[in-house]
Amino acid sequence: MDTSTDALEAFFNNVITVKVDDSHDAVDIIDQTLLPTKVKRIKLHTREDIWEAIKKLRVRGAPAIGVCAAYGMALLADGYNTNNRAEFDQRFNQDKKYLASSRPTAVNLFWALNRMQSTLNSLPDSTSIPEVKAELWKEADAIQNEDVAISKNIGELGFNLIEELKVEGKPVGIQTHCNAGTLATAKYGTATAPMYTALEHGWAGTDMHVYCDETRPLLQGARLTAFELMNAGITTTVQCDNMASILMKSGAIDIIFVGCDRVAANGDAANKIGTSGLAIIANHYHVPFYVCAPTSTIDMSTPDGSKIPIEMRDGDEVTEMWYKHRMAPEGVDVYNPAFDVTDANLITGIITERGICHAPYNEAFKKIGMI
Amino acid sequence: MDTSTDALEAFFNNVITVKVDDSHDAVDIIDQTLLPTKVKRIKLHTREDIWEAIKKLRVRGAPAIGVCAAYGMALLADGYNTNNRAEFDQRFNQDKKYLASSRPTAVNLFWALNRMQSTLNSLPDSTSIPEVKAELWKEADAIQNEDVAISKNIGELGFNLIEELKVEGKPVGIQTHCNAGTLATAKYGTATAPMYTALEHGWAGTDMHVYCDETRPLLQGARLTAFELMNAGITTTVQCDNMASILMKSGAIDIIFVGCDRVAANGDAANKIGTSGLAIIANHYHVPFYVCAPTSTIDMSTPDGSKIPIEMRDGDEVTEMWYKHRMAPEGVDVYNPAFDVTDANLITGIITERGICHAPYNEAFKKIGMI
Repeated sequence: MDTSTDALEAFFNNVITVKVDDSHDAVDIIDQTLLPTKVKRIKLHTREDIWEAIKKLRVRGAPAIGVCAAYGMALLADGYNTNNRAEFDQRFNQDKKYLASSRPTAVNLFWALNRMQSTLNSLPDSTSIPEVKAELWKEADAIQNEDVAISKNIGELGFNLIEELKVEGKPVGIQTHCNAGTLATAKYGTATAPMYTALEHGWAGTDMHVYCDETRPLLQGARLTAFELMNAGITTTVQCDNMASILMKSGAIDIIFVGCDRVAANGDAANKIGTSGLAIIANHYHVPFYVCAPTSTIDMSTPDGSKIPIEMRDGDEVTEMWYKHRMAPEGVDVYNPAFDVTDANLITGIITERGICHAPYNEAFKKIGMI
Repeated sequence: MDTSTDALEAFFNNVITVKVDDSHDAVDIIDQTLLPTKVKRIKLHTREDIWEAIKKLRVRGAPAIGVCAAYGMALLADGYNTNNRAEFDQRFNQDKKYLASSRPTAVNLFWALNRMQSTLNSLPDSTSIPEVKAELWKEADAIQNEDVAISKNIGELGFNLIEELKVEGKPVGIQTHCNAGTLATAKYGTATAPMYTALEHGWAGTDMHVYCDETRPLLQGARLTAFELMNAGITTTVQCDNMASILMKSGAIDIIFVGCDRVAANGDAANKIGTSGLAIIANHYHVPFYVCAPTSTIDMSTPDGSKIPIEMRDGDEVTEMWYKHRMAPEGVDVYNPAFDVTDANLITGIITERGICHAPYNEAFKKIGMI
């Protein structure tokens, strides 16, 4: 390992969302509510600790929540002081139900909890309790490792794209939106995976210049993405979302990577509000626009983006949430959709862990095994 | 006058940026630094009052600053307790120099002060001091009235456009960016003039639905435009700048009006940051995009937008200015251009007080007398 990858490992060790050491005594998370001004890791020991961390968004991002919940269940089960399997299973059920109540809209939370439950259910009654506990830790590790492997593949595919854009004496200009980074996942992020992979391949942080949309109204780009990229030593700039046009016109941006929440069968992709506008502007300036999407986000049962429901959120996120005092007239109507859908024809490619898909996406998705 | 125009006059009386009553005892302004949470008018009596109001942005917007400075000079001159013209002129010069130091980058401030100076210079020594004072008040009135007349013409031309878009049972959906409103000008604003003109023509406030981009980083849309439109009784919604794409895709927007700071001879238009991205998105969705530009902003000596310098502003406007605590990592680089240039080919029309210009703009501008 050379110095730059040593530095990258040190970075991951500090910033990684969820980790558990060999002593298995706690789930160790970075408290995202304190970022970017304060970097503090906290150790979750009790079920109340884990519940509160998910509820209060100390841990956020679908894959990261899943990993936290899975390790949380393994940790709690490890503490069951019983040799009676029925009692063990009953306590497991109670804790699972309790953790599931922390964030009732987080699909990945239920997915991870159910996967832990299935593992438990699959173990015959003859399995010793210490063995059951070990299997649950193994399953949580597997959930984490699978997410790392998926991001790693996306990262390698994305890195190939930025490597092609490299010219002598100029960093590759990359734009991203919201946070689809380390903080949201098990390790590499999705939209950030190409950048971290570049560091693993020996690139210097100054070989790239990543422009982070601040991402109104919740500012995940300014608070989280800029924080993690800067801490990884990558040249990082923050700008307001409405500066994308002048930025691309200036020639600063060679490629755009964004994450996504859900991709329809035709390639229409739902992601954080502002993504579709960014794609339209990228298209206007002929800047390649890539969506980084684990195959788990591709929903072949949704024919196109018009069928993806868009969550409307409270206006106070726009008018007062972060501010010293209110920034719009009292009582004014606020339009605050949390996501938008980017039409497939604006997307240069969708990078999955199984390969990069291009239009027509319906066929491309089938080729990588989606049905 | 019917009730709706009575209500409009009451609105203007409350919200108008600068006014002077017949007693000529003060310059009465709305304190824009307290908006949108507090509506407070203040009376400026001394030269220090006027200087501070311009310096601290209690009055802002190029035309509004000009009107405030002109009335300020008339007010100060009215107080010169002398019958000696040489002494009068000397005090006028000192006050003018002092007011000019309040905001050294505000071109319209100097323009208005110089115009007051020219009026004074044009009066022969034989003119009595009371007559000189009356002429200065008249000139300040003229500066205000000319701006009102220009905005009024722009408003009528813009109103014709929205009238054509009116369909039974649905308000006309209008989007605007930043504040090119009453608060920035003498009365109607530029981008808001079509809406206020519609009220004058008897439209109800609910016949329009105006969507105001909050306009990061300084939030003039949320703080000022939404405030004034709401107060005029117009249906008003605030949204983040990055919501323009989903908003237009939803079909909510029939037409867009924006102001401008400077138009090049080929029609390229510099305006608040974010305008060019909005124009690209409007173009994508085939939403008509109009720039409201008094002919005074058309600069025939600038061949195209690439020659318009873009002011870069401090990063703390993006990362901390309005916030309870910092919203991006300490020390991160910030990209914060104050303006961008919208290419002429993205602009449906440029509405001047002399008519609506269409591409090719160079020829259209010559037709309305620009040289």
